[in-house]
Amino acid sequence: MDSTIKHIGVFTSGGDSPGMNAALYAITKTAEVNGINVSGFRKGYEGLIDGDLVQLKSHELQKLTQKGGTILKTARSKRFLELEGRKKALQTLNVNKIDALIAIGGDGTFKGLLAFSEICDIPFIGIPGTIDNDISGTDYTLGFDSAVNTAIENIDKIRDTAESHNRVFIVEVMGRDSGYIGIHSGLMVGADAILIPESGTDFINLLGKVKNYDSEDAFLIVVSEGDEIGAELVSSKIKEVNPNVDLRITKLGHIQRGGNPSALDRMLGIRLGVEAVKSLLQSKKNVMIGILNNQLHLTPFNEVVKQHQVNKELHELLELFGT
Amino acid sequence: MDSTIKHIGVFTSGGDSPGMNAALYAITKTAEVNGINVSGFRKGYEGLIDGDLVQLKSHELQKLTQKGGTILKTARSKRFLELEGRKKALQTLNVNKIDALIAIGGDGTFKGLLAFSEICDIPFIGIPGTIDNDISGTDYTLGFDSAVNTAIENIDKIRDTAESHNRVFIVEVMGRDSGYIGIHSGLMVGADAILIPESGTDFINLLGKVKNYDSEDAFLIVVSEGDEIGAELVSSKIKEVNPNVDLRITKLGHIQRGGNPSALDRMLGIRLGVEAVKSLLQSKKNVMIGILNNQLHLTPFNEVVKQHQVNKELHELLELFGT
Amino acid sequence: MDSTIKHIGVFTSGGDSPGMNAALYAITKTAEVNGINVSGFRKGYEGLIDGDLVQLKSHELQKLTQKGGTILKTARSKRFLELEGRKKALQTLNVNKIDALIAIGGDGTFKGLLAFSEICDIPFIGIPGTIDNDISGTDYTLGFDSAVNTAIENIDKIRDTAESHNRVFIVEVMGRDSGYIGIHSGLMVGADAILIPESGTDFINLLGKVKNYDSEDAFLIVVSEGDEIGAELVSSKIKEVNPNVDLRITKLGHIQRGGNPSALDRMLGIRLGVEAVKSLLQSKKNVMIGILNNQLHLTPFNEVVKQHQVNKELHELLELFGT
Amino acid sequence: MDSTIKHIGVFTSGGDSPGMNAALYAITKTAEVNGINVSGFRKGYEGLIDGDLVQLKSHELQKLTQKGGTILKTARSKRFLELEGRKKALQTLNVNKIDALIAIGGDGTFKGLLAFSEICDIPFIGIPGTIDNDISGTDYTLGFDSAVNTAIENIDKIRDTAESHNRVFIVEVMGRDSGYIGIHSGLMVGADAILIPESGTDFINLLGKVKNYDSEDAFLIVVSEGDEIGAELVSSKIKEVNPNVDLRITKLGHIQRGGNPSALDRMLGIRLGVEAVKSLLQSKKNVMIGILNNQLHLTPFNEVVKQHQVNKELHELLELFGT
Repeated sequence: MDSTIKHIGVFTSGGDSPGMNAALYAITKTAEVNGINVSGFRKGYEGLIDGDLVQLKSHELQKLTQKGGTILKTARSKRFLELEGRKKALQTLNVNKIDALIAIGGDGTFKGLLAFSEICDIPFIGIPGTIDNDISGTDYTLGFDSAVNTAIENIDKIRDTAESHNRVFIVEVMGRDSGYIGIHSGLMVGADAILIPESGTDFINLLGKVKNYDSEDAFLIVVSEGDEIGAELVSSKIKEVNPNVDLRITKLGHIQRGGNPSALDRMLGIRLGVEAVKSLLQSKKNVMIGILNNQLHLTPFNEVVKQHQVNKELHELLELFGT
Repeated sequence: MDSTIKHIGVFTSGGDSPGMNAALYAITKTAEVNGINVSGFRKGYEGLIDGDLVQLKSHELQKLTQKGGTILKTARSKRFLELEGRKKALQTLNVNKIDALIAIGGDGTFKGLLAFSEICDIPFIGIPGTIDNDISGTDYTLGFDSAVNTAIENIDKIRDTAESHNRVFIVEVMGRDSGYIGIHSGLMVGADAILIPESGTDFINLLGKVKNYDSEDAFLIVVSEGDEIGAELVSSKIKEVNPNVDLRITKLGHIQRGGNPSALDRMLGIRLGVEAVKSLLQSKKNVMIGILNNQLHLTPFNEVVKQHQVNKELHELLELFGT
Repeated sequence: MDSTIKHIGVFTSGGDSPGMNAALYAITKTAEVNGINVSGFRKGYEGLIDGDLVQLKSHELQKLTQKGGTILKTARSKRFLELEGRKKALQTLNVNKIDALIAIGGDGTFKGLLAFSEICDIPFIGIPGTIDNDISGTDYTLGFDSAVNTAIENIDKIRDTAESHNRVFIVEVMGRDSGYIGIHSGLMVGADAILIPESGTDFINLLGKVKNYDSEDAFLIVVSEGDEIGAELVSSKIKEVNPNVDLRITKLGHIQRGGNPSALDRMLGIRLGVEAVKSLLQSKKNVMIGILNNQLHLTPFNEVVKQHQVNKELHELLELFGT
Repeated sequence: MDSTIKHIGVFTSGGDSPGMNAALYAITKTAEVNGINVSGFRKGYEGLIDGDLVQLKSHELQKLTQKGGTILKTARSKRFLELEGRKKALQTLNVNKIDALIAIGGDGTFKGLLAFSEICDIPFIGIPGTIDNDISGTDYTLGFDSAVNTAIENIDKIRDTAESHNRVFIVEVMGRDSGYIGIHSGLMVGADAILIPESGTDFINLLGKVKNYDSEDAFLIVVSEGDEIGAELVSSKIKEVNPNVDLRITKLGHIQRGGNPSALDRMLGIRLGVEAVKSLLQSKKNVMIGILNNQLHLTPFNEVVKQHQVNKELHELLELFGT
């Protein structure tokens, strides 16, 4: 056990995601039990640069496991991309006698830590937090399960009205250039078609189905957002072959990013938060904590890459149900 | 009591809204208790024209009070606008020996019944069903309360992410040219600004607030959809005066239309459904059943008009909280 | 307008209920706009006695319209029943220069204000807050609609398992000696039987139905808690005549008391909160603000009584659907 | 690929759990794509004995992935425990030319299949469905994640009222003699104490905490149901040492068993359902499909045992957060 750690700094960075507050609770509780203080930097790397920090107490965080977003606030920091910004951050750590740093965020966050490690040699630990689930080294990122639950609850609502009108509905879900939310939510709601970036933009099959679709029922299309895809593109393709189709579009948008974290995300936040502190006590550094095959797993920052996890099984499911 | 009624026809028309199935249950149960059969026409006036009907049983409908949409399906019918269509509908009623008709829908639905009454003299009763709450003669239409509940649950989620990023968020809610959902949901979520068609498009005040908004917090704008309003317009106005603002748009869209009905809408469906049958038994005809000041109230079809209920109290609330 | 009021005190008392925080927001915002400060006393009358108060700011309360419970905390106070306690409370008001008092609570809260008015002549305004909806002078109390929504969402879940097993389920809902939650939630979920204190404990009809109930389906009984009623009593009666029945009991309990307020309760909190301050500015005193027939309505404290609102229409619905 | 399978029978058995309908959809869709018919037996083994079956169509099941419970209904069958019952079931299979059987249920269901395999040699496949998550060979059983989500959403509501009153609340969750739901939900809501059967009934630590608990806040205890544990026992122990404590009990009960399945449970149902049919096509028999370490995994029926998965990591979390 590494007894030199007396004061941990923690921050959330990049997009917020449900479960971040549960992780903050777990980090703080585990630290306190081990006699360690925890300071929270506000607004991601911006707070590190500006010395904007608050002391965290598990007694207060305990009530907030249910709360979406991040109480530390988050931001993307241009200044930290510059050496000047990182030097200021180092100064903040020194002034406040921070012995170790835990960051919750996406792959960009961990790249920032890697760059920072060139001038700062205290141990860094990363926790993957993003609704996009697009980070290697973990089966789940904080927030993905909540985002999918929000998506399917709302697509279920849309099914009500689609069935009442025998309408074609295109529902666009989030994921940037990853179809991971799309394929999952599409399967879960019994969609008639699922279009994700990874499956290409072969519309021929879809158009055939829509052309002949049973007008005595709803036809539900779940499509990921993306440059080469998205609800408008699908809509215009359909209207080319079927101009009179009764079609509606709904983009779920940012509602997928907030809300109370799901059971899985709360538990994930707790497991990853506890392990982050334990790893520090075991003198680990510059690793991201993930869950691989339901086991806690450490990945060095320089091996963490952005990736989509549309594996063979998912591709087969997509082929079976979604096209 | 009118003992000549042995067979009631019922249908849902126009946009679907949560609570329609509860009304169908109440109609059928009340009819059965009075020895009356109930047939449901599918897809609104289309089913009347085509003779597309099913027998309704309260035992089966009982389980569906919780279900959004309408199990009878709904549609807008161009054919019923023509005398030809209405004559076919009359034939359907005669063939099936329908003694009375109950329709659940909006003001267009009741206009249809008025036109139909010129050639068909069985009694018609209307029940107001639309999420827009824009019908005179009732304080609430079926589905409005559910739509507002869906809106605020999702705007609450957006607040999480807005506060995490200290962002300006514009949330667009439904209502066609009525700001009723907008003003209600905006007040309920503690919005910083609420823009509805009825309040004009005076952006000066809003822009002043956004220009100086506390960048240490979220700034939440709820705006109604509409021709002279809407999220994009508000966004472009803001960016003119504040080009660097961190702003996001979410349009809630059709999720507001579906989903399990709220408590109020289920109760409203039951009260209106029961009263519809009772009114028939009391030889009432060509009236819409509404709730005015918490009392059941009948309005002749030719007095039912489309209207917005942004009364004096609401206007004062809007001025106090939303601008 | 009463320009002598510069500082309002507010507190919540009795059982907490969803919507109280929305009312606190509306009170504070309306006061601020009129140049009035607001202090919140914590834990009901206890805070008045002990001088336990915090300053309220609408900017902070704005985010909390969605939050159940009461941020001021609440309690029942034995000390305030004694003159000694009320004298201490008077001292607190004098020391803090409180010009008027707004209390959110049930009929016991308003009785307390009446007793207090004998020694304290600043104006008092009451807002009805209780999930039981058992206060005269208002059609809705803060929290009732949220409680019913929570009840029906959970009874809907129970229907899933009741239907999967063709089981008899008894669900006990809250309401103390009032059947108001029971009758409403029972109607809304399509219950096979609804038992409330007001309808007497005539089990004969129920037992006949259960004895012959279609074992190919669920049989759902909603029963109010109460001295002469309740789930166990109903269960034992049923088992007397039908010992082999596959029967389960669930008591919803305190989940009905918490949770994010529904749309109706948030709006009610805002309307009542605004009117409370306006009434003070119009020199009103010792009245409760309610909503009667959808209009704001003032009732003098000495006319406010505890009552159940199972009116004629509800009784007829109960007879039609619930027995 | 086993081309001899033309007709699969499927049924749900034991307690219902959310996700069963998603599994039925996936089984039927996968079968159809492979030219196989699917019949569903109603009420578990009872339907097998009585020849009570319906044909399943993926087009109809597609809309029901969101529905809790099981549309095939379920039951516990005493008759199937007898050889006589199993012989009748065999006859049903022969008469209907069923080539393979898929059962969704708990360990009792699989024991039934083992016994049945002595007289029936068509292939059997099992899918683990129970909210208790107490079956070896899989990390998750169908319904567990939904049950925990329902539990935490309701405990969050209870927190509102517990904090408003600074009360001690004991919330009892399901799990029979397994503490798996208890430990998970307790961690996820930030409980002050978590009591599960596996952790023994050492109340000393709990009582110390409650005796000195900060009466300025809530104290939330999550306890599993069970013979040697449960809410009443905990309550009486607390009142022995602290008779004046303001304490309330809520037992969540059967609401944990129903409701729309969570994202995880829908996906699990789909993955397991697809794999069940694929396994049959690969001539597998008498195995249960599970998910171990996020991979599909087959376990022979005779190796499936009832177990609690409170592993080392969970025990450490319990020690850290719950005692």
